[in-house]
Amino acid sequence: EDEEEKELRQRFMAPPVSGLRELRRRRRELRSRMELLIMETQAEVCRALAALDPGASFAVDSWERKEGGGGISCVLQDGEVFEKAGVNVSVVSGLLSEEAARQMRSRGKSLKAKDGKLPFCAMGVSSVIHPKNPHVPTMHFNYRYFEIEEADGTVKWWFGGGTDLTPTYLNEEDAVHFHKTLKEACDKHDLKLYPKYKKWCDDYFYIKHRGERRGIGGIFFDDLDSPSKEEVFQFVKSCAKAVVPCYIPIVKKHCHDSFTPEEKLWQQLRRGRYVEFNLVYDRGTKFGLLTPGSRIESILMSLPLTARWEYMHNPPESSKEAEILEVLRNPKDWVH
Amino acid sequence: EDEEEKELRQRFMAPPVSGLRELRRRRRELRSRMELLIMETQAEVCRALAALDPGASFAVDSWERKEGGGGISCVLQDGEVFEKAGVNVSVVSGLLSEEAARQMRSRGKSLKAKDGKLPFCAMGVSSVIHPKNPHVPTMHFNYRYFEIEEADGTVKWWFGGGTDLTPTYLNEEDAVHFHKTLKEACDKHDLKLYPKYKKWCDDYFYIKHRGERRGIGGIFFDDLDSPSKEEVFQFVKSCAKAVVPCYIPIVKKHCHDSFTPEEKLWQQLRRGRYVEFNLVYDRGTKFGLLTPGSRIESILMSLPLTARWEYMHNPPESSKEAEILEVLRNPKDWVH
Repeated sequence: EDEEEKELRQRFMAPPVSGLRELRRRRRELRSRMELLIMETQAEVCRALAALDPGASFAVDSWERKEGGGGISCVLQDGEVFEKAGVNVSVVSGLLSEEAARQMRSRGKSLKAKDGKLPFCAMGVSSVIHPKNPHVPTMHFNYRYFEIEEADGTVKWWFGGGTDLTPTYLNEEDAVHFHKTLKEACDKHDLKLYPKYKKWCDDYFYIKHRGERRGIGGIFFDDLDSPSKEEVFQFVKSCAKAVVPCYIPIVKKHCHDSFTPEEKLWQQLRRGRYVEFNLVYDRGTKFGLLTPGSRIESILMSLPLTARWEYMHNPPESSKEAEILEVLRNPKDWVH
Repeated sequence: EDEEEKELRQRFMAPPVSGLRELRRRRRELRSRMELLIMETQAEVCRALAALDPGASFAVDSWERKEGGGGISCVLQDGEVFEKAGVNVSVVSGLLSEEAARQMRSRGKSLKAKDGKLPFCAMGVSSVIHPKNPHVPTMHFNYRYFEIEEADGTVKWWFGGGTDLTPTYLNEEDAVHFHKTLKEACDKHDLKLYPKYKKWCDDYFYIKHRGERRGIGGIFFDDLDSPSKEEVFQFVKSCAKAVVPCYIPIVKKHCHDSFTPEEKLWQQLRRGRYVEFNLVYDRGTKFGLLTPGSRIESILMSLPLTARWEYMHNPPESSKEAEILEVLRNPKDWVH
């Protein structure tokens, strides 16, 4: 093992799925650069979280997928600061049916298969952080890259991703900090991106049967394949690098806030809504549950440690609970 | 109000949706007889449960559906014996799109609409009982009746329903009692029914991504429209009358059993699986969430008060936790 490999290995939570040697050999290919980015993001986020919860540590599981590829799941459970924090990397490849390929894209673009099968490669980092203190919001992010090879040899590629915040109680200063940090990451590339992806996020994380969004949003995008592979990758990289600065200061600020049993109860009810969104609507979760050979424990890592459902729970008017419900029902612009 | 109305009113948890006068006037019609049966079943079950949890009582909500009909929801929450017990009656009518009508049937029989709309009537009683003590199983039942009028005036009708048990720990004696009581109800009508509907139940309550059933089964049937309306009604009536005798003795037997914090924790993890089934797979829940004007609180009444998800929780071999998992993975015949 040479110095370069040693250094790379120390930067990550576990050896990359594609192997360091292979990633170095193919270092100019976008696939390899994206795999390095998602591995770095995983390590950065895990280290930042672990530093705030010194008693706890991440369990690291490397797993293989029979059909091709594998992943690395890092989970911190029942810590002092975090109830459940999961950061998952997966790099999978193989053959997709035309039907499955269609489901992978949010706009159902048609893809032409040879003998009904399409060689594909999908990789991403995804994470949900559920803190214990009801004054620290839940955060989710996911950045992913797809390649599908059509019958004539054309390779279709696209990126997707986003970062969003789900507070139990509204703190306007935190909401502004979170959105502003994401906006700055977007603005470096194109001033049109933040407004577009902020709205997409509000539209996507909608719990239709409740008439509420899951949280106060952030950014969300899918099927991104222009202006160029390089430019989209640089944009995704900026977003991934913004995860720690948009969230960690909020955790630091509130993780020692005092809270009442009533506030903890409201957090548990909001956790119930989180479960409703993820199991009923989330495309990623549904796709994962339906995909043969997928790793269920890594997909359902996003569910909170505990959740609660009360019949007909309606917070009183003008309460702090009603205040957050109001912005979940009518999303606000946090940055002007 | 005459004596007969007074008596009827006392038998129920609330005035029936169709009104007593109307039900008496149309007393020979199957719709009316079914509405009386579901109202009686609701009251019987609520009274049997309330008798076991004297400190708690059922909140009774009568609600109307803007598009036609309404319902009565009875919920007991956070009692001594029951964590959450809901018994819901709904009697709704109106116009269905062909698409919605197709979704209502498990086998997609085609129905011919006049101007794309089908007049329909749907009624049923449904219930989920989540006890506090991990040695008392969760029980679910649902009995329902549908009518749809086609373009040429033909009325298509069918019944559906079932009763099933979800224990946290396996108690073979209880499992046998539960299945035997249901088998006796079925056997009065046709010896072929119990084996068929027992298997249907095991197949229906399957959490595919876990490779586990939700519980140890019972009976389940849908689209039942033969041999005749009267005979199917009598069968459904026998099943509904079996709810109290199949379940209440099990609650009585175990509601004062002592339990450890570890047993309570395992119950909470199993509650998580219950949520997974109901939100990801249950046709009734999904249909409800997608139906405009449906009462979300009554649909999601089935969710437990509290649930838990731990990453990679695997009970040790030969433990009591592994014992129940084994029968959830490989359903057994409880009655021979």
